[in-house]
Amino acid sequence: MSATKIFNVIVMALYIQFSNLAFANGNGIVVFQSDFGLSDQAVSAMHGVALGVDKNLKVEDLTHDIPAYNIWEGAYRLDAVANFWPADTVFVSVVDPGVGSERKSVVLKTKSNHYFVTPDNGTLTLVAKRLGIAEVREIDEKVNRLKGSEASHTFHGRDVYAYTGARLAASAITFEQVGPILAPEVLSIPYEAARIDANKLIGGIPILDPAYGNVWTNIPMSLLLSLTKAKNYTTLYTQKFLVTVSQAGKFVLAETISFERSFAGVNEGQPLLYVNSLENLALALNQANFASKFNIQAGGEWRIEIVPK
Amino acid sequence: MSATKIFNVIVMALYIQFSNLAFANGNGIVVFQSDFGLSDQAVSAMHGVALGVDKNLKVEDLTHDIPAYNIWEGAYRLDAVANFWPADTVFVSVVDPGVGSERKSVVLKTKSNHYFVTPDNGTLTLVAKRLGIAEVREIDEKVNRLKGSEASHTFHGRDVYAYTGARLAASAITFEQVGPILAPEVLSIPYEAARIDANKLIGGIPILDPAYGNVWTNIPMSLLLSLTKAKNYTTLYTQKFLVTVSQAGKFVLAETISFERSFAGVNEGQPLLYVNSLENLALALNQANFASKFNIQAGGEWRIEIVPK
Amino acid sequence: MSATKIFNVIVMALYIQFSNLAFANGNGIVVFQSDFGLSDQAVSAMHGVALGVDKNLKVEDLTHDIPAYNIWEGAYRLDAVANFWPADTVFVSVVDPGVGSERKSVVLKTKSNHYFVTPDNGTLTLVAKRLGIAEVREIDEKVNRLKGSEASHTFHGRDVYAYTGARLAASAITFEQVGPILAPEVLSIPYEAARIDANKLIGGIPILDPAYGNVWTNIPMSLLLSLTKAKNYTTLYTQKFLVTVSQAGKFVLAETISFERSFAGVNEGQPLLYVNSLENLALALNQANFASKFNIQAGGEWRIEIVPK
Repeated sequence: MSATKIFNVIVMALYIQFSNLAFANGNGIVVFQSDFGLSDQAVSAMHGVALGVDKNLKVEDLTHDIPAYNIWEGAYRLDAVANFWPADTVFVSVVDPGVGSERKSVVLKTKSNHYFVTPDNGTLTLVAKRLGIAEVREIDEKVNRLKGSEASHTFHGRDVYAYTGARLAASAITFEQVGPILAPEVLSIPYEAARIDANKLIGGIPILDPAYGNVWTNIPMSLLLSLTKAKNYTTLYTQKFLVTVSQAGKFVLAETISFERSFAGVNEGQPLLYVNSLENLALALNQANFASKFNIQAGGEWRIEIVPK
Repeated sequence: MSATKIFNVIVMALYIQFSNLAFANGNGIVVFQSDFGLSDQAVSAMHGVALGVDKNLKVEDLTHDIPAYNIWEGAYRLDAVANFWPADTVFVSVVDPGVGSERKSVVLKTKSNHYFVTPDNGTLTLVAKRLGIAEVREIDEKVNRLKGSEASHTFHGRDVYAYTGARLAASAITFEQVGPILAPEVLSIPYEAARIDANKLIGGIPILDPAYGNVWTNIPMSLLLSLTKAKNYTTLYTQKFLVTVSQAGKFVLAETISFERSFAGVNEGQPLLYVNSLENLALALNQANFASKFNIQAGGEWRIEIVPK
Repeated sequence: MSATKIFNVIVMALYIQFSNLAFANGNGIVVFQSDFGLSDQAVSAMHGVALGVDKNLKVEDLTHDIPAYNIWEGAYRLDAVANFWPADTVFVSVVDPGVGSERKSVVLKTKSNHYFVTPDNGTLTLVAKRLGIAEVREIDEKVNRLKGSEASHTFHGRDVYAYTGARLAASAITFEQVGPILAPEVLSIPYEAARIDANKLIGGIPILDPAYGNVWTNIPMSLLLSLTKAKNYTTLYTQKFLVTVSQAGKFVLAETISFERSFAGVNEGQPLLYVNSLENLALALNQANFASKFNIQAGGEWRIEIVPK
């Protein structure tokens, strides 16, 4: 064997050797979400458990400011962000009012190859629908549980979910080793769908943009395009719409609002209809708070209707 | 030397070479805690200094929401989380009302091989007791201080603690190079210990769970087992206890509360006694706020008594 | 070729090979700042986009608690922290009330070799002055924009700034590939400069320390040294000064305050003048809130005068 050949063999062998430092099934990224806040040690304990599994993991956060026990908002945040993280990212979501009860602990693998480690309590409603269910497995807590944590029954986020998510992301276990396969379905929370009804768009208000008080609807821009197609507008921008909002059937707001490319399209303090970062219709005041001015909140009982003028 | 032998020698040599990328004494993880909040640049400056020491470090946080100057809560958070981080993790804790005064800047190495970089002002009270003191060293600020920061006397967290903690975690210095060895003791804050007194458990309320308003005691589950051993219960779960709480001798609460495996054991809004994630007894309302309902806070003057019914 | 020579060649070749894992122009660190808060998915989406560019990046934060639309405070925070991050760090700052309007999206390279990715709306006022402008380039959004995000006009922070900043830090693009070079200037917000006027120091209050209520001036310690040089004090510490504060010409405070090495120099609740972590003069109460006690805020219309007694 010549020196050159030896060299090539060695380089190849070492390449393989050091490539193994990279991760097999996961991509090495774990993203945490919870309703714990950042003021105590709970989030740091989850991060510590994850880096204890493998200190080469990237440990990141979605948010820990989900309102306590608000499974719907947890579902919403996961749905809003998942597509902006690379494939094979492992999300660990712990909004778990039923900790210790009989709700299942699961890992959802979506068709987009994202993983979601969470109690199956509705948290997966929206990602399952948007990204598609590839497979659901129940976490086998006999195997996938932080060693020494057996006496604690109230912090599954740390002892089971963080530990299992980190092991999956670090390829310490395969997806199959999470536990037994379940039927390809998740517990879903009902919510009002966006739709065209005659000459109107109808939808819900799943969330507010908390930093600015913008009102986010679940009506995709594509529905507005369908509705207005026959009108042959040169451009939708600056067109006016009658927007009505109601809560549980009770009238809250009716206002004529123009559709704008961005906030700068209207004067300071004026309302606009725009396309948010999720490609859905939203309402805002330029440099002011739409939701607080008009007393609008988010949730299943809220309904919005949009009619071209 | 055969090609195979050459190969083996080289693989070994390179393994050693690249293993050096890993860190010698520290494990490459620095965890920050402070009372700075996250709204200004202080925490980011500490992270920047750490990554300026070695950009391969993992820079993590415990919390930065310790109430201003609340050394006790800083001590509590460190104690609650340290064991969930791998050995050789370096904690940097900056709750430092006496910055610039004569309090010592130290690094505690515990018997569990965790490091704590902090002013010795009581912050180490609980980790020193739980994890055991292996060695205490005083930071030699002539050597272990960010270059160019000599004129600033008010941000030791960045200039001394972050810098020293990062250098220790990155193995830029050994523990010995921190500075001179001190007596193996730390400044300790007095607090009421948990104990059995005749037929009662007595203890304190070191902390509230801020996200949910649960009241955490310092009474370990093991004391409850000792107390109730003679009763030969089939199971402790659902057993009832008379719980009384007082502040500085003044009566605050007396309530009969059942011991439950988890929150789901009682109806919404009802109280329960349970084992928290630190294996201590705690009080909660299922999906509501125990502390605010009964006006209970945490601190040295609070006392809790638990009597089997 | 001897085995030793083969060994040396291979080690050198592999060293080069694995060194390439490091980054060319950027240093692999991206630091995010915004007015988004941490309660929704916006910050996590930016982090996800960055790690989608290259999962070996270090993704860090300055703060996301800039008050909504407060460009001045964004400028201030960048200026206060940049020097504590290593050269080649890429800062991505998104305080962008004019998103969608005609403000330019730029990358500033400073003479200190830091990069700032941001709308050119005043955010760069202070870092451009302190660190010096090496080169300014406009972001070519046709090339430097997250694939698939073209329909969204309201989240440039994620789609353009995070993506471009991450590509720069990961050396996926060179600085030249950001886009066309601009004149070496940035949009600057006017503010009152610190100066000596006869026997007085005059300056502004650019910011409060939000955690403690300390009042930070823009008067550097060096100006105090110049002013007091002729007095031949043995030490400045404990010297007394008449401090007056006014807002838009209206008197707010006049108080005799001593200059102290640190907070511990005065009794609890007493005021002091000290050098803050930016080497500027600042006002505080030892363990209490100066700004709220005396109703002082930050901003261009605030003026402070300091006269030796």
